[in-house]
Amino acid sequence: MERGTRHFSEELEALQDQLLSMGGLAEERVRQAVSGLTERDYGLIEHVLTGDTPINELHIDIDDRCFKLLALRQPVAADLRTIVAAVKANTDLERVGDLAVNIAEAAKRALQYPTPSAISDIPHMSTIAQRMLRDALDAFVRRDVFLARAVLAEDDTLDTLKVDVSRDLLSSMRADPTAIDGCLQLILVSRHLERIGDHATNIAEDVIFMVSAQDVRHHVADVPTRGRDDPPGSRSGLE
Amino acid sequence: MERGTRHFSEELEALQDQLLSMGGLAEERVRQAVSGLTERDYGLIEHVLTGDTPINELHIDIDDRCFKLLALRQPVAADLRTIVAAVKANTDLERVGDLAVNIAEAAKRALQYPTPSAISDIPHMSTIAQRMLRDALDAFVRRDVFLARAVLAEDDTLDTLKVDVSRDLLSSMRADPTAIDGCLQLILVSRHLERIGDHATNIAEDVIFMVSAQDVRHHVADVPTRGRDDPPGSRSGLE
Repeated sequence: MERGTRHFSEELEALQDQLLSMGGLAEERVRQAVSGLTERDYGLIEHVLTGDTPINELHIDIDDRCFKLLALRQPVAADLRTIVAAVKANTDLERVGDLAVNIAEAAKRALQYPTPSAISDIPHMSTIAQRMLRDALDAFVRRDVFLARAVLAEDDTLDTLKVDVSRDLLSSMRADPTAIDGCLQLILVSRHLERIGDHATNIAEDVIFMVSAQDVRHHVADVPTRGRDDPPGSRSGLE
Repeated sequence: MERGTRHFSEELEALQDQLLSMGGLAEERVRQAVSGLTERDYGLIEHVLTGDTPINELHIDIDDRCFKLLALRQPVAADLRTIVAAVKANTDLERVGDLAVNIAEAAKRALQYPTPSAISDIPHMSTIAQRMLRDALDAFVRRDVFLARAVLAEDDTLDTLKVDVSRDLLSSMRADPTAIDGCLQLILVSRHLERIGDHATNIAEDVIFMVSAQDVRHHVADVPTRGRDDPPGSRSGLE
Protein backbone atom coordinates (compact mmCIF):
# COMPACT_ATOMS: atom_id res chain seq x y z
CA MET A 1 0.00 0.00 0.00
CA GLU A 2 2.80 2.42 0.79
CA ARG A 3 4.18 2.02 -2.69
CA GLY A 4 0.73 2.72 -4.12
CA THR A 5 0.38 5.83 -2.00
CA ARG A 6 3.78 7.12 -3.09
CA HIS A 7 2.91 6.50 -6.70
CA PHE A 8 -0.36 8.33 -6.35
CA SER A 9 1.34 11.40 -4.93
CA GLU A 10 3.87 11.26 -7.77
CA GLU A 11 1.04 11.08 -10.25
CA LEU A 12 -0.67 14.02 -8.61
CA GLU A 13 2.59 15.95 -8.86
CA ALA A 14 2.89 15.13 -12.56
CA LEU A 15 -0.70 16.27 -13.02
CA GLN A 16 0.01 19.55 -11.28
CA ASP A 17 3.14 20.07 -13.40
CA GLN A 18 1.06 19.62 -16.53
CA LEU A 19 -1.55 22.06 -15.27
CA LEU A 20 1.20 24.59 -14.56
CA SER A 21 2.57 24.10 -18.09
CA MET A 22 -0.89 24.58 -19.50
CA GLY A 23 -1.40 27.68 -17.39
CA GLY A 24 1.97 29.06 -18.51
CA LEU A 25 1.08 28.47 -22.16
CA ALA A 26 -2.35 30.07 -21.74
CA GLU A 27 -0.92 33.08 -19.94
CA GLU A 28 1.82 33.53 -22.57
CA ARG A 29 -0.71 33.41 -25.38
CA VAL A 30 -2.86 36.06 -23.72
CA ARG A 31 0.25 38.23 -23.29
CA GLN A 32 1.20 37.77 -26.95
CA ALA A 33 -2.29 38.53 -28.22
CA VAL A 34 -2.46 41.79 -26.27
CA SER A 35 1.14 42.72 -27.22
CA GLY A 36 0.23 42.08 -30.85
CA LEU A 37 -2.50 44.67 -30.42
CA THR A 38 -0.52 47.29 -28.51
CA GLU A 39 2.65 46.93 -30.65
CA ARG A 40 0.64 46.56 -33.88
CA ASP A 41 2.64 43.37 -34.42
CA TYR A 42 0.80 41.38 -37.07
CA GLY A 43 3.34 38.55 -36.90
CA LEU A 44 2.69 38.05 -33.21
CA ILE A 45 -1.08 38.12 -33.78
CA GLU A 46 -0.75 35.51 -36.51
CA HIS A 47 1.43 33.43 -34.18
CA VAL A 48 -1.41 33.35 -31.63
CA LEU A 49 -4.04 32.64 -34.29
CA THR A 50 -2.22 29.60 -35.63
CA GLY A 51 -0.47 28.29 -32.53
CA ASP A 52 -3.13 26.60 -30.42
CA THR A 53 -2.08 23.01 -31.08
CA PRO A 54 0.22 22.62 -28.02
CA ILE A 55 -2.39 23.89 -25.58
CA ASN A 56 -5.12 21.74 -27.15
CA GLU A 57 -2.91 18.65 -26.95
CA LEU A 58 -2.11 19.38 -23.33
CA HIS A 59 -5.82 19.81 -22.63
CA ILE A 60 -6.52 16.29 -23.87
CA ASP A 61 -3.46 14.83 -22.11
CA ILE A 62 -4.52 16.29 -18.78
CA ASP A 63 -8.11 15.11 -19.19
CA ASP A 64 -6.80 11.67 -20.01
CA ARG A 65 -4.54 11.62 -16.99
CA CYS A 66 -7.40 12.66 -14.69
CA PHE A 67 -9.58 9.91 -16.13
CA LYS A 68 -6.94 7.29 -15.52
CA LEU A 69 -6.36 8.50 -11.98
CA LEU A 70 -10.09 8.34 -11.25
CA ALA A 71 -10.50 4.90 -12.80
CA LEU A 72 -7.35 3.17 -11.62
CA ARG A 73 -6.75 4.86 -8.25
CA GLN A 74 -10.34 5.35 -7.13
CA PRO A 75 -9.43 8.32 -4.97
CA VAL A 76 -11.69 9.56 -2.19
CA ALA A 77 -11.99 12.70 -0.07
CA ALA A 78 -9.24 15.29 -0.62
CA ASP A 79 -7.59 13.33 -3.44
CA LEU A 80 -10.90 13.01 -5.26
CA ARG A 81 -11.55 16.72 -4.83
CA THR A 82 -8.09 17.44 -6.25
CA ILE A 83 -8.66 15.35 -9.39
CA VAL A 84 -12.11 16.81 -10.01
CA ALA A 85 -10.69 20.32 -9.46
CA ALA A 86 -7.97 19.49 -11.99
CA VAL A 87 -10.58 18.39 -14.56
CA LYS A 88 -12.36 21.71 -14.09
CA ALA A 89 -9.19 23.83 -14.08
CA ASN A 90 -8.11 22.10 -17.28
CA THR A 91 -11.40 23.09 -18.94
CA ASP A 92 -10.97 26.65 -17.72
CA LEU A 93 -7.43 26.86 -19.08
CA GLU A 94 -8.50 25.51 -22.44
CA ARG A 95 -11.14 28.25 -22.63
CA VAL A 96 -8.46 30.81 -21.76
CA GLY A 97 -6.49 29.48 -24.73
CA ASP A 98 -9.58 30.00 -26.91
CA LEU A 99 -9.97 33.51 -25.52
CA ALA A 100 -6.36 34.32 -26.47
CA VAL A 101 -7.35 33.39 -30.04
CA ASN A 102 -10.48 35.56 -29.74
CA ILE A 103 -8.32 38.48 -28.57
CA ALA A 104 -5.95 37.96 -31.50
CA GLU A 105 -8.91 37.90 -33.92
CA ALA A 106 -10.31 41.12 -32.47
CA ALA A 107 -6.82 42.69 -32.49
CA LYS A 108 -6.36 41.80 -36.14
CA ARG A 109 -9.67 43.44 -37.03
CA ALA A 110 -9.03 46.45 -34.76
CA LEU A 111 -5.75 47.20 -36.55
CA GLN A 112 -7.60 47.53 -39.86
CA TYR A 113 -9.42 50.57 -38.51
CA PRO A 114 -8.50 53.85 -36.87
CA THR A 115 -8.29 53.28 -33.12
CA PRO A 116 -7.69 55.75 -30.32
CA SER A 117 -3.96 56.20 -29.70
CA ALA A 118 -4.47 55.34 -26.04
CA ILE A 119 -6.26 52.02 -26.01
CA SER A 120 -7.55 52.76 -22.59
CA ASP A 121 -6.73 50.37 -19.79
CA ILE A 122 -6.57 47.22 -21.91
CA PRO A 123 -2.87 46.51 -21.19
CA HIS A 124 -3.60 47.01 -17.49
CA MET A 125 -6.54 44.58 -17.71
CA SER A 126 -4.29 42.06 -19.43
CA THR A 127 -1.63 42.32 -16.73
CA ILE A 128 -4.22 41.69 -14.03
CA ALA A 129 -5.85 38.79 -15.90
CA GLN A 130 -2.48 37.11 -16.44
CA ARG A 131 -1.54 37.53 -12.78
CA MET A 132 -4.90 36.11 -11.69
CA LEU A 133 -4.29 33.02 -13.81
CA ARG A 134 -0.79 32.55 -12.43
CA ASP A 135 -1.95 33.08 -8.84
CA ALA A 136 -4.90 30.71 -9.24
CA LEU A 137 -2.62 27.93 -10.45
CA ASP A 138 0.01 28.64 -7.81
CA ALA A 139 -2.79 28.47 -5.26
CA PHE A 140 -3.82 25.11 -6.75
CA VAL A 141 -0.33 23.62 -6.53
CA ARG A 142 0.46 25.08 -3.11
CA ARG A 143 -3.06 24.42 -1.84
CA ASP A 144 -3.03 28.04 -0.74
CA VAL A 145 -6.54 29.20 0.14
CA PHE A 146 -5.28 32.67 1.05
CA LEU A 147 -3.84 33.21 -2.44
CA ALA A 148 -7.01 31.78 -3.98
CA ARG A 149 -9.03 34.38 -2.09
CA ALA A 150 -6.72 37.11 -3.40
CA VAL A 151 -7.67 36.01 -6.92
CA LEU A 152 -11.36 36.46 -6.12
CA ALA A 153 -10.63 39.99 -4.92
CA GLU A 154 -8.67 40.84 -8.09
CA ASP A 155 -11.66 39.87 -10.19
CA ASP A 156 -13.55 42.85 -8.80
CA THR A 157 -10.72 45.15 -9.93
CA LEU A 158 -10.85 43.64 -13.39
CA ASP A 159 -14.62 44.13 -13.62
CA THR A 160 -14.27 47.78 -12.61
CA LEU A 161 -11.57 48.31 -15.25
CA LYS A 162 -13.79 46.71 -17.88
CA VAL A 163 -16.53 49.24 -17.11
CA ASP A 164 -14.00 52.10 -17.39
CA VAL A 165 -12.65 50.75 -20.69
CA SER A 166 -16.13 50.42 -22.18
CA ARG A 167 -17.02 53.95 -21.11
CA ASP A 168 -13.81 55.40 -22.63
CA LEU A 169 -14.26 53.55 -25.88
CA LEU A 170 -17.93 54.47 -26.18
CA SER A 171 -16.91 58.13 -25.79
CA SER A 172 -14.38 57.69 -28.58
CA MET A 173 -17.03 56.12 -30.79
CA ARG A 174 -19.47 58.95 -30.19
CA ALA A 175 -16.79 61.60 -30.77
CA ASP A 176 -15.57 60.04 -34.01
CA PRO A 177 -17.85 57.67 -35.90
CA THR A 178 -14.95 56.51 -38.09
CA ALA A 179 -13.58 54.93 -34.90
CA ILE A 180 -16.70 52.82 -34.34
CA ASP A 181 -15.39 49.60 -35.90
CA GLY A 182 -11.99 49.73 -34.23
CA CYS A 183 -13.38 50.68 -30.83
CA LEU A 184 -15.92 47.86 -30.96
CA GLN A 185 -13.09 45.39 -31.39
CA LEU A 186 -11.28 46.91 -28.41
CA ILE A 187 -14.43 46.61 -26.31
CA LEU A 188 -14.59 42.95 -27.29
CA VAL A 189 -10.94 42.53 -26.25
CA SER A 190 -11.80 43.97 -22.84
CA ARG A 191 -14.68 41.48 -22.55
CA HIS A 192 -12.39 38.59 -23.43
CA LEU A 193 -9.94 39.72 -20.75
CA GLU A 194 -12.79 39.95 -18.26
CA ARG A 195 -13.71 36.35 -19.08
CA ILE A 196 -10.12 35.24 -18.55
CA GLY A 197 -10.44 36.72 -15.09
CA ASP A 198 -13.66 34.74 -14.64
CA HIS A 199 -11.86 31.52 -15.51
CA ALA A 200 -9.08 32.32 -13.03
CA THR A 201 -11.83 32.96 -10.48
CA ASN A 202 -13.39 29.57 -11.24
CA ILE A 203 -10.04 27.89 -10.62
CA ALA A 204 -9.56 29.81 -7.38
CA GLU A 205 -13.04 28.78 -6.17
CA ASP A 206 -12.23 25.17 -6.97
CA VAL A 207 -8.98 25.47 -5.01
CA ILE A 208 -10.91 26.67 -1.98
CA PHE A 209 -13.29 23.74 -2.26
CA MET A 210 -10.45 21.32 -2.92
CA VAL A 211 -8.53 22.38 0.17
CA SER A 212 -11.30 23.16 2.61
CA ALA A 213 -14.31 21.27 1.20
CA GLN A 214 -16.01 24.63 1.53
CA ASP A 215 -18.10 25.88 -1.33
CA VAL A 216 -17.71 29.60 -1.99
CA ARG A 217 -19.55 29.58 -5.28
CA HIS A 218 -22.82 31.48 -5.37
CA HIS A 219 -21.99 32.69 -1.84
CA VAL A 220 -23.43 29.51 -0.36
CA ALA A 221 -21.03 29.73 2.56
CA ASP A 222 -19.66 32.66 4.44
CA VAL A 223 -16.10 33.27 3.39
CA PRO A 224 -13.85 32.30 6.27
CA THR A 225 -10.87 34.48 7.04
CA ARG A 226 -7.33 33.16 7.07
CA GLY A 227 -6.68 30.77 9.88
CA ARG A 228 -10.16 29.30 9.81
CA ASP A 229 -9.63 27.31 6.65
CA ASP A 230 -8.32 24.07 7.96
CA PRO A 231 -11.10 22.54 10.00
CA PRO A 232 -14.09 23.25 7.78
CA GLY A 233 -17.44 21.57 7.86
CA SER A 234 -17.47 18.84 5.26
CA ARG A 235 -19.71 19.90 2.38
CA SER A 236 -20.27 16.58 0.74
CA GLY A 237 -20.31 14.36 3.79
CA LEU A 238 -17.62 12.18 2.22
CA GLU A 239 -15.02 12.52 4.90
CA MET B 1 -23.90 -6.92 -6.30
CA GLU B 2 -27.06 -6.84 -8.38
CA ARG B 3 -28.71 -4.62 -5.86
CA GLY B 4 -25.73 -2.24 -5.99
CA THR B 5 -25.89 -2.16 -9.78
CA ARG B 6 -29.57 -1.37 -9.78
CA HIS B 7 -29.04 1.39 -7.29
CA PHE B 8 -26.26 2.88 -9.37
CA SER B 9 -28.44 3.03 -12.47
CA GLU B 10 -31.19 4.63 -10.40
CA GLU B 11 -28.71 7.18 -9.14
CA LEU B 12 -27.57 7.88 -12.67
CA GLU B 13 -31.19 8.41 -13.66
CA ALA B 14 -31.73 10.83 -10.80
CA LEU B 15 -28.59 12.68 -11.88
CA GLN B 16 -29.83 12.91 -15.44
CA ASP B 17 -33.21 14.17 -14.25
CA GLN B 18 -31.47 16.92 -12.31
CA LEU B 19 -29.37 17.86 -15.34
CA LEU B 20 -32.55 18.05 -17.44
CA SER B 21 -34.16 20.29 -14.83
CA MET B 22 -31.09 22.50 -14.79
CA GLY B 23 -31.07 22.62 -18.59
CA GLY B 24 -34.79 23.49 -18.63
CA LEU B 25 -34.21 26.30 -16.14
CA ALA B 26 -31.23 27.65 -18.08
CA GLU B 27 -33.10 27.53 -21.38
CA GLU B 28 -36.14 29.24 -19.88
CA ARG B 29 -34.02 32.03 -18.43
CA VAL B 30 -32.37 32.65 -21.80
CA ARG B 31 -35.81 32.78 -23.42
CA GLN B 32 -37.06 35.22 -20.79
CA ALA B 33 -34.02 37.50 -21.09
CA VAL B 34 -34.39 37.76 -24.87
CA SER B 35 -38.18 38.20 -24.64
CA GLY B 36 -37.58 40.96 -22.11
CA LEU B 37 -35.50 42.69 -24.78
CA THR B 38 -37.79 42.13 -27.75
CA GLU B 39 -41.01 42.91 -25.83
CA ARG B 40 -39.38 45.77 -23.90
CA ASP B 41 -40.65 43.99 -20.78
CA TYR B 42 -38.73 45.46 -17.84
CA GLY B 43 -40.49 43.18 -15.38
CA LEU B 44 -39.30 40.08 -17.19
CA ILE B 45 -35.76 41.45 -17.38
CA GLU B 46 -35.81 42.12 -13.65
CA HIS B 47 -37.15 38.62 -13.07
CA VAL B 48 -34.09 37.18 -14.83
CA LEU B 49 -31.70 39.53 -13.03
CA THR B 50 -32.91 38.52 -9.60
CA GLY B 51 -33.91 34.90 -10.14
CA ASP B 52 -30.69 32.89 -10.32
CA THR B 53 -30.97 31.22 -6.93
CA PRO B 54 -32.72 28.02 -8.12
CA ILE B 55 -30.20 27.35 -10.89
CA ASN B 56 -27.27 28.06 -8.59
CA GLU B 57 -28.66 25.71 -5.95
CA LEU B 58 -29.18 23.01 -8.53
CA HIS B 59 -25.60 23.52 -9.75
CA ILE B 60 -24.27 22.76 -6.29
CA ASP B 61 -26.67 19.84 -5.75
CA ILE B 62 -25.58 18.20 -9.00
CA ASP B 63 -21.90 18.72 -8.25
CA ASP B 64 -22.48 17.17 -4.86
CA ARG B 65 -24.27 14.19 -6.31
CA CYS B 66 -21.47 13.59 -8.81
CA PHE B 67 -18.90 13.75 -6.03
CA LYS B 68 -20.79 11.22 -3.97
CA LEU B 69 -21.20 8.88 -6.93
CA LEU B 70 -17.46 9.07 -7.66
CA ALA B 71 -16.46 8.55 -4.06
CA LEU B 72 -18.94 5.91 -3.00
CA ARG B 73 -19.50 3.99 -6.23
CA GLN B 74 -16.02 4.17 -7.72
CA PRO B 75 -17.34 3.88 -11.26
CA VAL B 76 -15.11 2.87 -14.16
CA ALA B 77 -15.29 2.94 -17.95
CA ALA B 78 -18.62 4.17 -19.38
CA ASP B 79 -20.10 4.96 -15.94
CA LEU B 80 -17.05 7.03 -15.03
CA ARG B 81 -17.23 8.86 -18.34
CA THR B 82 -20.91 9.59 -17.66
CA ILE B 83 -20.25 11.11 -14.23
CA VAL B 84 -17.33 13.21 -15.46
CA ALA B 85 -19.45 14.36 -18.42
CA ALA B 86 -22.19 15.31 -15.94
CA VAL B 87 -19.72 17.37 -13.89
CA LYS B 88 -18.71 19.23 -17.03
CA ALA B 89 -22.26 19.65 -18.36
CA ASN B 90 -23.29 21.02 -14.98
CA THR B 91 -20.54 23.64 -15.20
CA ASP B 92 -21.64 24.54 -18.72
CA LEU B 93 -25.27 24.92 -17.66
CA GLU B 94 -24.32 27.12 -14.74
CA ARG B 95 -22.43 29.40 -17.16
CA VAL B 96 -25.51 29.48 -19.40
CA GLY B 97 -27.46 30.69 -16.37
CA ASP B 98 -24.85 33.43 -15.89
CA LEU B 99 -25.13 34.34 -19.56
CA ALA B 100 -28.91 34.71 -19.22
CA VAL B 101 -28.16 37.29 -16.51
CA ASN B 102 -25.62 38.97 -18.81
CA ILE B 103 -28.23 39.13 -21.57
CA ALA B 104 -30.75 40.65 -19.16
CA GLU B 105 -28.16 43.25 -18.05
CA ALA B 106 -27.38 44.17 -21.66
CA ALA B 107 -31.11 44.25 -22.49
CA LYS B 108 -31.79 46.58 -19.58
CA ARG B 109 -29.08 48.96 -20.79
CA ALA B 110 -30.12 48.64 -24.43
CA LEU B 111 -33.67 49.73 -23.61
CA GLN B 112 -32.35 52.99 -22.16
CA TYR B 113 -31.13 54.03 -25.60
CA PRO B 114 -32.58 54.29 -29.08
CA THR B 115 -32.22 50.93 -30.81
CA PRO B 116 -33.06 49.88 -34.35
CA SER B 117 -36.69 48.78 -34.61
CA ALA B 118 -35.59 45.48 -36.10
CA ILE B 119 -33.07 44.03 -33.69
CA SER B 120 -31.57 41.98 -36.43
CA ASP B 121 -31.47 38.23 -36.04
CA ILE B 122 -31.15 38.17 -32.26
CA PRO B 123 -34.48 36.35 -31.67
CA HIS B 124 -33.44 33.82 -34.30
CA MET B 125 -30.07 33.33 -32.59
CA SER B 126 -31.87 32.83 -29.29
CA THR B 127 -34.17 30.17 -30.75
CA ILE B 128 -31.19 28.26 -32.12
CA ALA B 129 -29.17 28.55 -28.92
CA GLN B 130 -32.11 27.29 -26.84
CA ARG B 131 -32.67 24.36 -29.20
CA MET B 132 -28.97 23.47 -29.09
CA LEU B 133 -29.10 23.36 -25.30
CA ARG B 134 -32.19 21.17 -25.31
CA ASP B 135 -30.77 18.84 -27.95
CA ALA B 136 -27.42 18.55 -26.19
CA LEU B 137 -29.12 17.46 -22.97
CA ASP B 138 -31.52 15.12 -24.77
CA ALA B 139 -28.46 13.62 -26.45
CA PHE B 140 -26.89 13.22 -23.01
CA VAL B 141 -29.86 11.42 -21.51
CA ARG B 142 -30.56 9.28 -24.57
CA ARG B 143 -26.85 8.70 -25.22
CA ASP B 144 -27.60 9.81 -28.78
CA VAL B 145 -24.39 10.54 -30.65
CA PHE B 146 -26.30 11.43 -33.80
CA LEU B 147 -28.22 14.19 -32.03
CA ALA B 148 -25.00 15.38 -30.38
CA ARG B 149 -23.43 15.76 -33.80
CA ALA B 150 -26.45 17.78 -34.96
CA VAL B 151 -25.71 20.22 -32.13
CA LEU B 152 -22.15 20.67 -33.40
CA ALA B 153 -23.52 21.48 -36.87
CA GLU B 154 -25.98 24.03 -35.47
CA ASP B 155 -23.13 25.89 -33.83
CA ASP B 156 -21.83 26.86 -37.27
CA THR B 157 -25.23 28.36 -38.10
CA LEU B 158 -25.17 30.34 -34.88
CA ASP B 159 -21.68 31.68 -35.60
CA THR B 160 -22.74 32.80 -39.08
CA LEU B 161 -25.78 34.57 -37.63
CA LYS B 162 -23.59 36.32 -35.08
CA VAL B 163 -21.43 37.73 -37.89
CA ASP B 164 -24.56 38.95 -39.71
CA VAL B 165 -25.95 40.52 -36.56
CA SER B 166 -22.69 42.36 -35.83
CA ARG B 167 -22.52 43.65 -39.40
CA ASP B 168 -26.13 44.92 -39.30
CA LEU B 169 -25.66 46.62 -35.96
CA LEU B 170 -22.35 48.22 -36.96
CA SER B 171 -24.15 49.68 -40.01
CA SER B 172 -26.83 51.09 -37.72
CA MET B 173 -24.16 52.63 -35.49
CA ARG B 174 -22.39 54.27 -38.41
CA ALA B 175 -25.67 55.55 -39.87
CA ASP B 176 -26.86 57.02 -36.58
CA PRO B 177 -24.32 57.77 -33.84
CA THR B 178 -27.14 58.22 -31.30
CA ALA B 179 -27.71 54.46 -31.72
CA ILE B 180 -24.14 53.57 -30.72
CA ASP B 181 -24.85 52.77 -27.08
CA GLY B 182 -27.96 50.71 -27.74
CA CYS B 183 -26.44 48.82 -30.65
CA LEU B 184 -23.35 47.96 -28.63
CA GLN B 185 -25.57 46.30 -26.04
CA LEU B 186 -27.32 44.32 -28.78
CA ILE B 187 -23.95 43.19 -30.15
CA LEU B 188 -23.07 42.00 -26.66
CA VAL B 189 -26.37 40.09 -26.48
CA SER B 190 -25.47 38.33 -29.73
CA ARG B 191 -22.07 37.41 -28.26
CA HIS B 192 -23.71 36.00 -25.14
CA LEU B 193 -26.02 33.90 -27.32
CA GLU B 194 -23.03 32.67 -29.30
CA ARG B 195 -21.40 31.59 -26.05
CA ILE B 196 -24.55 29.73 -25.03
CA GLY B 197 -24.17 27.81 -28.28
CA ASP B 198 -20.55 27.12 -27.33
CA HIS B 199 -21.65 25.64 -24.01
CA ALA B 200 -24.22 23.43 -25.78
CA THR B 201 -21.41 22.37 -28.10
CA ASN B 202 -19.20 21.47 -25.13
CA ILE B 203 -21.98 19.30 -23.73
CA ALA B 204 -22.50 17.63 -27.12
CA GLU B 205 -18.76 16.90 -27.40
CA ASP B 206 -18.79 15.38 -23.94
CA VAL B 207 -21.77 13.21 -24.93
CA ILE B 208 -19.82 11.86 -27.90
CA PHE B 209 -16.87 11.02 -25.67
CA MET B 210 -19.15 9.58 -22.99
CA VAL B 211 -20.87 7.23 -25.42
CA SER B 212 -18.07 6.35 -27.80
CA ALA B 213 -14.90 7.14 -25.82
CA GLN B 214 -14.01 9.12 -28.91
CA ASP B 215 -12.63 12.60 -28.50
CA VAL B 216 -13.95 15.07 -31.07
CA ARG B 217 -12.55 18.12 -29.34
CA HIS B 218 -9.84 20.00 -31.20
CA HIS B 219 -10.49 17.64 -34.15
CA VAL B 220 -8.19 15.03 -32.63
CA ALA B 221 -10.22 12.26 -34.22
CA ASP B 222 -12.05 12.07 -37.49
CA VAL B 223 -15.76 12.35 -36.90
CA PRO B 224 -17.35 8.98 -37.52
CA THR B 225 -20.68 8.83 -39.30
CA ARG B 226 -23.78 7.27 -37.78
CA GLY B 227 -23.50 3.53 -37.41
CA ARG B 228 -19.80 3.60 -36.67
CA ASP B 229 -20.15 4.95 -33.18
CA ASP B 230 -20.50 1.85 -31.15
CA PRO B 231 -17.23 0.01 -31.47
CA PRO B 232 -14.77 2.88 -31.18
CA GLY B 233 -11.12 2.69 -30.33
CA SER B 234 -10.77 3.34 -26.63
CA ARG B 235 -9.26 6.77 -26.12
CA SER B 236 -8.07 6.40 -22.61
CA GLY B 237 -7.19 2.73 -22.62
CA LEU B 238 -9.42 2.17 -19.62
CA GLU B 239 -11.71 -0.40 -21.12
